Amino acid sequence: MEEKKSTNIILFSGDYDKAMAAFIIANGAAAYDHDVTIFATFWGLNAFRKEEKVDVEKGKMEKMFGKMMPRGAENMGLSNMNFGGMGPKMIKNVMKKHQAMPLSDLIDMAQEQDVKLVACTMTMDLLGLQKEELIEGIEYGGVAAYLAEAEDGNVNLFI
Amino acid sequence: MEEKKSTNIILFSGDYDKAMAAFIIANGAAAYDHDVTIFATFWGLNAFRKEEKVDVEKGKMEKMFGKMMPRGAENMGLSNMNFGGMGPKMIKNVMKKHQAMPLSDLIDMAQEQDVKLVACTMTMDLLGLQKEELIEGIEYGGVAAYLAEAEDGNVNLFI
Amino acid sequence: MEEKKSTNIILFSGDYDKAMAAFIIANGAAAYDHDVTIFATFWGLNAFRKEEKVDVEKGKMEKMFGKMMPRGAENMGLSNMNFGGMGPKMIKNVMKKHQAMPLSDLIDMAQEQDVKLVACTMTMDLLGLQKEELIEGIEYGGVAAYLAEAEDGNVNLFI
Repeated sequence: MEEKKSTNIILFSGDYDKAMAAFIIANGAAAYDHDVTIFATFWGLNAFRKEEKVDVEKGKMEKMFGKMMPRGAENMGLSNMNFGGMGPKMIKNVMKKHQAMPLSDLIDMAQEQDVKLVACTMTMDLLGLQKEELIEGIEYGGVAAYLAEAEDGNVNLFI
Repeated sequence: MEEKKSTNIILFSGDYDKAMAAFIIANGAAAYDHDVTIFATFWGLNAFRKEEKVDVEKGKMEKMFGKMMPRGAENMGLSNMNFGGMGPKMIKNVMKKHQAMPLSDLIDMAQEQDVKLVACTMTMDLLGLQKEELIEGIEYGGVAAYLAEAEDGNVNLFI
Repeated sequence: MEEKKSTNIILFSGDYDKAMAAFIIANGAAAYDHDVTIFATFWGLNAFRKEEKVDVEKGKMEKMFGKMMPRGAENMGLSNMNFGGMGPKMIKNVMKKHQAMPLSDLIDMAQEQDVKLVACTMTMDLLGLQKEELIEGIEYGGVAAYLAEAEDGNVNLFI
């Protein structure tokens, strides 16, 4: 029996458009029957935040980070032509018109297709993000977890 | 007979310097007899735009995107030290001095070396870019086309 | 005897956080007994600059680049939430609190673990950086050197 191919994406970026690219590739690879994992690290973790404020105990610095970073996929900015927040609205308008899925739907779809979503515990620590603040159904791991999958991966990307 | 190795680059970025890196790697890999493909998506599509304005029917939003995005490789900005457009001129000056090829020549060279250039149809739709506006000699495809190549690729990069 | 696995990272970015990610992955892979190489190109070269000013003969443009670019790992900015230089200080504060290694220590650790550090000679030329200005113990090469390693690599990333 042939082993399944695998796609492993590190989502470092906190930009809406880059996260879209990551999830479009992930969903495509899952449809092609790959084992797919998205490891969110640094700003990429914002895509996994819940939209609502979650009450958790935090230090001052961590509170500040929490406030400054976008809460969840649909609040992220663009890597290009962001125009102080106007860009994402424009992109979402054309996406609607062309019936393209918004990022939050792409994430739901990934979870339905068993794409494994992993939050990097080391950067959760640094940015002061706690499990309660992240969406359900994700796993937690570090660089060792990433390498264990990626070293036998077919498509490894850093986004 | 041994199969040819393959290099597959997703060019997401619309920055001059990042696109240069993509095409330098692509041209190098082609010289090493790899099958090479560059899939341009999102802002990376700007590298494939013709420099001249092409008259095509467009919606309002698509017209606006078309105006705001750089038209062709030599009109792209830098990812770093762009200084409102001064940066690219400085870089191009030092490139000339060191006889490094400008991006548009790197693209020509890639085409001469049979590097396959693919424009992502999904993002063409989103950004309102039409085939008539893109350079000749490129192909069109989506995430499926990318995965078909990349899943057996040796060097897969997201730039 | 099984061949060692290999991880090959192109460090294009000159951002502190992205370089941290590169070196965390590199150190992790080295701990997992991979052959690991980091190829620094374009702004990524700044991570290899010595912190002190080195007196070398340079053209005007090269002098200007030298002045404008950060001198060494600990002087680099963030890809996100940089806030005119405040961001890196904040991140370094939380890193200290969580006993995470600063970038300069991650680079030292990489060298101790025999991660091969390669500076891209083509972009050194362009940006006017000379060997005397870069840290000790690194190698020099171009795209050919990169491809020779990456074409048989397991984890290839562009950061």
